[in-house]
Amino acid sequence: MGALSFEIEHRSGSCAARTGVVRTLHGSFQTPAFMPVGTQGTLKGLLPKDVRATGSEIVLGNTYHLMLRPGEEVVRALGGLHSFMGWTGPILTDSGGYQAYSMSDINRVTDDSVVFRSIVDGSEVTLTPERAMDVQHALGADIIMALDDCPPSVDPRGFSATRQRLAGQRERAERRRGYDHGARLDEANERTIRWLERCKARHEAGGHQERQSLFGIVQGGTDLERRSRSAEQVCGVELPGYAIGGVAVGEGYEEIVRVVEHTAGLLPEGKPRYLMGVGYERDLVAAVRAGVDMFDCVLPTRNGRNAYAFTPFGAIRLRNAIHTRDPSPIDEGCDCLACRPDLHAWETPGGVPVSRGYLRHLFQAGEMLGPILVSLHNVRHFQRLMVDIRRTIRDDDWSGFERRWPVVGAATLGGDREGPESSCRVMD
Amino acid sequence: MGALSFEIEHRSGSCAARTGVVRTLHGSFQTPAFMPVGTQGTLKGLLPKDVRATGSEIVLGNTYHLMLRPGEEVVRALGGLHSFMGWTGPILTDSGGYQAYSMSDINRVTDDSVVFRSIVDGSEVTLTPERAMDVQHALGADIIMALDDCPPSVDPRGFSATRQRLAGQRERAERRRGYDHGARLDEANERTIRWLERCKARHEAGGHQERQSLFGIVQGGTDLERRSRSAEQVCGVELPGYAIGGVAVGEGYEEIVRVVEHTAGLLPEGKPRYLMGVGYERDLVAAVRAGVDMFDCVLPTRNGRNAYAFTPFGAIRLRNAIHTRDPSPIDEGCDCLACRPDLHAWETPGGVPVSRGYLRHLFQAGEMLGPILVSLHNVRHFQRLMVDIRRTIRDDDWSGFERRWPVVGAATLGGDREGPESSCRVMD
Repeated sequence: MGALSFEIEHRSGSCAARTGVVRTLHGSFQTPAFMPVGTQGTLKGLLPKDVRATGSEIVLGNTYHLMLRPGEEVVRALGGLHSFMGWTGPILTDSGGYQAYSMSDINRVTDDSVVFRSIVDGSEVTLTPERAMDVQHALGADIIMALDDCPPSVDPRGFSATRQRLAGQRERAERRRGYDHGARLDEANERTIRWLERCKARHEAGGHQERQSLFGIVQGGTDLERRSRSAEQVCGVELPGYAIGGVAVGEGYEEIVRVVEHTAGLLPEGKPRYLMGVGYERDLVAAVRAGVDMFDCVLPTRNGRNAYAFTPFGAIRLRNAIHTRDPSPIDEGCDCLACRPDLHAWETPGGVPVSRGYLRHLFQAGEMLGPILVSLHNVRHFQRLMVDIRRTIRDDDWSGFERRWPVVGAATLGGDREGPESSCRVMD
Repeated sequence: MGALSFEIEHRSGSCAARTGVVRTLHGSFQTPAFMPVGTQGTLKGLLPKDVRATGSEIVLGNTYHLMLRPGEEVVRALGGLHSFMGWTGPILTDSGGYQAYSMSDINRVTDDSVVFRSIVDGSEVTLTPERAMDVQHALGADIIMALDDCPPSVDPRGFSATRQRLAGQRERAERRRGYDHGARLDEANERTIRWLERCKARHEAGGHQERQSLFGIVQGGTDLERRSRSAEQVCGVELPGYAIGGVAVGEGYEEIVRVVEHTAGLLPEGKPRYLMGVGYERDLVAAVRAGVDMFDCVLPTRNGRNAYAFTPFGAIRLRNAIHTRDPSPIDEGCDCLACRPDLHAWETPGGVPVSRGYLRHLFQAGEMLGPILVSLHNVRHFQRLMVDIRRTIRDDDWSGFERRWPVVGAATLGGDREGPESSCRVMD
């Protein structure tokens, strides 16, 4: 396990939260950590130096996208993903499995592989556990993920129309043929453990564990019994870290919390625990309190591109006319490159805060700089939240946290559970 | 004239080129100067700090776009253009006249105004000399331009179909009715001087000359006699600087050089001379040798957004498949944020050069970071050219310049005049 070490530094006295540091061959990152997502080998619109200025210490790349374009061999030829995208710190790549399920019009899952149509050129692509490893070895991230079978978390027959879309074409087809959700979850659990063993074998056959660390993924949907079984199976395979998958794929906040609170404690205490693809601020806080160490989510960048800016008091929509002549920054308390360029004075002598009025103009005019600035702000917002979460754990001061992050705190700690959007109360 | 001073520092012994410094209330810039264009209050995709890192000391904003969206009163309410766009250095705004002619489907020019349809909402907008001043006073740039009448530089009846499109709808309509190019040029000259006098009166009535410096614009098409007459009229109005307008609006390289060489020497020796909207590298070099001090052009940013990167050895098209696995930077000799991030080490610890292969991937994948990186490179390319031009003037070393910038030098100094694109020889 020389490629990765994890040291726990502080434990909260009142919950399962802990702070720590993960060390990789490309540097270390503090936990709990939020990893912004660079899907196609770039955090959309952001220079690596500016990503670093948000306090991000590790970023995520998507295997699915990179294997299709430019192809993993191109990335390898250009020196691997770190060199390719100019990010010299730690990187994590997913297995490609989740997008193969969720983004493809046509896919088949067999006991051997996932078969899907490429979103780039429509060709048929087969992803086996071995191929998922080979691709991630070519990319060269510090942490790589096993290929798993990710079923819908809840029975798709009970889904709303929107959630049915989220659950993907394949599940709808199965539903038409008569669908047994429990059987599907069992099947996914079985495939996930068998595929994990194949991933590990491929990974270690090449000696890759000396440079890259393979994490396993626990499945089981929202059924706690099946979560327990999957955790037992997956954690029975000796690995440097473990993830909780299949969460936040359409179910509500209470379900997310219930599953994470149950599952996090089943993962080994001494290894990093990663909750995949989650989420809103209050989801992160709840998961941290359950003992989770690592998170990734596209929210700060995706919402930023849509003029949706996070603040501790709720989110604001910068396209709204109310901001037209508003000279104030997005968030008076934020220290990002948009809100306080003067704090980055070596870069911006005399820099003035970016006003909400200017940001509205940029979005109205279709200018790239709007998405760029709000993405930078939002990523920094999430990193400021993580800094404060780590401080709160060290001081075991959750009431202080609730004062500093009122909307998040109220939702997470005070029991205000209205639905998945409420930690992002929109103020105007 | 307290708002602007111009000091000439060196004169070339072999041509009319000179170096100097222009001082404004927002700081100074060295001349000859290249001003990148921030049309809608942003250099597309670039943070102000990164624009500064290209060596740009002054930027241009477009009055036409800003008066239509968000409107000059919004910019004023947000503290003026410097504060609005977060650029604390000098800014120049044009009058809006050129875009009123070139971008509008419907426009009428009378002795009093230009009337056009807004590209934002289709409403009819009237631009008078007084309104052009009022808008620029609200924007608050350090250097503002008089409203001029900009006719097609050459008789549109002789134009190719492409150049006819460039000359605009209005000129084609006039051509159908029987068009007298000489009379049109005379009319434009007369309007230009009358409008300049009205601009100056409005500007000084409000005392704006204490904070903003009004430049006049010489017209006259490609007719040297009419250029002389316009220069005499325009320079007869006491102003802190003068511009050459109506150049590079469809005519070829030889015509540009002939007109600029004739006109630059007619402008006052002791004041900055600004050639509007020009151009390719060799156009800049030829104009500098004729005594021009200031330039603006959208080429580095517009071409950058289209994956077209400038180098001293010609331009490269980064979408081409030949770059797929190319690990080399755009230009080994460049020190921009893309080619040599390690030189900006306070921003990018351990930064690695951005490869042509990565850039190609970004353009293929439709990622914003491609346009951003190539725009940054191209603006730096133009600023490196200006740094070298200033050095060349100081040392009067034009043969050294030709060695360092072979393609530009050959086109400009060696008489290789193949057409307007040849200083941008495309290498692949």
